[in-house]
Amino acid sequence: MDTRTLALDDEAPDVASDDAPATVTEKIEKAVLDLLEDQGVLAGINLNDVARKAQVTRGLVYHHFGDRRGLLRSAIRRRMAASNAAKTTPKKPMPLDERIVHALVATQNAVDTLKLTTLLHLDGSTAPTLMPNAEATLLLLQRDLALGLIQETDDLEALHAIYAALVYGYTLYREVFARDLGLDANDLDKRLQDEIRNIFNK
Amino acid sequence: MDTRTLALDDEAPDVASDDAPATVTEKIEKAVLDLLEDQGVLAGINLNDVARKAQVTRGLVYHHFGDRRGLLRSAIRRRMAASNAAKTTPKKPMPLDERIVHALVATQNAVDTLKLTTLLHLDGSTAPTLMPNAEATLLLLQRDLALGLIQETDDLEALHAIYAALVYGYTLYREVFARDLGLDANDLDKRLQDEIRNIFNK
Repeated sequence: MDTRTLALDDEAPDVASDDAPATVTEKIEKAVLDLLEDQGVLAGINLNDVARKAQVTRGLVYHHFGDRRGLLRSAIRRRMAASNAAKTTPKKPMPLDERIVHALVATQNAVDTLKLTTLLHLDGSTAPTLMPNAEATLLLLQRDLALGLIQETDDLEALHAIYAALVYGYTLYREVFARDLGLDANDLDKRLQDEIRNIFNK
Repeated sequence: MDTRTLALDDEAPDVASDDAPATVTEKIEKAVLDLLEDQGVLAGINLNDVARKAQVTRGLVYHHFGDRRGLLRSAIRRRMAASNAAKTTPKKPMPLDERIVHALVATQNAVDTLKLTTLLHLDGSTAPTLMPNAEATLLLLQRDLALGLIQETDDLEALHAIYAALVYGYTLYREVFARDLGLDANDLDKRLQDEIRNIFNK
């Protein structure tokens, strides 16, 4: 799994800050994210409200983004781009368990982006992708397998899907699981990492 | 993981059908699910629209459900209850890999319910739970471990979280993963099951 889209820091500065002059599109993208944050996702995206908050006309929102989905997609992409440069899937050889733990930590640091992306998927959108660089990642896993860093399997694509499901599923539902198990979420994080090492260590 | 909340068949008959007289609450619950299905989740839940579709007053919707979240939670619970009886986590001793595959198939049969539940969680709701019977499931895993059906670990809670994350994560993102990998989703399902057996088989 390429973690480029995952390794996004939700602590990254907002695209449009109060200190810097924001372009119109940035202002609109910030408005939709702020509204979702303040009102919850069940309130949906109301383009009139977005326009009002961004102090632009509704027509301008349509002009730039087309519809709700286009607007949210664009806002997510900008947020991703803002913190994209430094963090990618480690290219160096790495035992599979450490690779999964690395992806998990990176994804948890971008949990807000994952939640927004999931909302888009629930709406039926096919983007953004969750494995933006699947081909390169599969080559990398083949290399690590040849080096003996991954336990024997002839299906690296299925393995890729399993570890992506685990990483994204845990990040998304972490707090629900911790509560259901009666555990502190930070403690569960540590125990999960150890158990990933137990299961995926060759 | 207790699959009671998962093992729900989205092919189950609607709570309120056109042929049977529906109670008012059933009609309202059906209306909100139909609207989400028709208009997408980014449109949100508009209680005026729900009332109009259910042919009741908006006041009645508030009276019965309080708010959007209460309404959606109730609609999900009724849908769960409708197909809850027969399908639970298998109580008999079972190798871990087969238990995970069983949970995966049951969850995939209830993908619509998982998506609605995820929408509630994205809104900040803490219910419905995803491990409704965690204590009993942990006892069952302890028993299977003692019987040698699970590979050695001293952390069954973390193992539980890992397999729940894998099952829910895959069910939620299955189509995205298949597209990213350039595979048919049904083929990926089969390959994933085989790879689960490869990884979790003792």
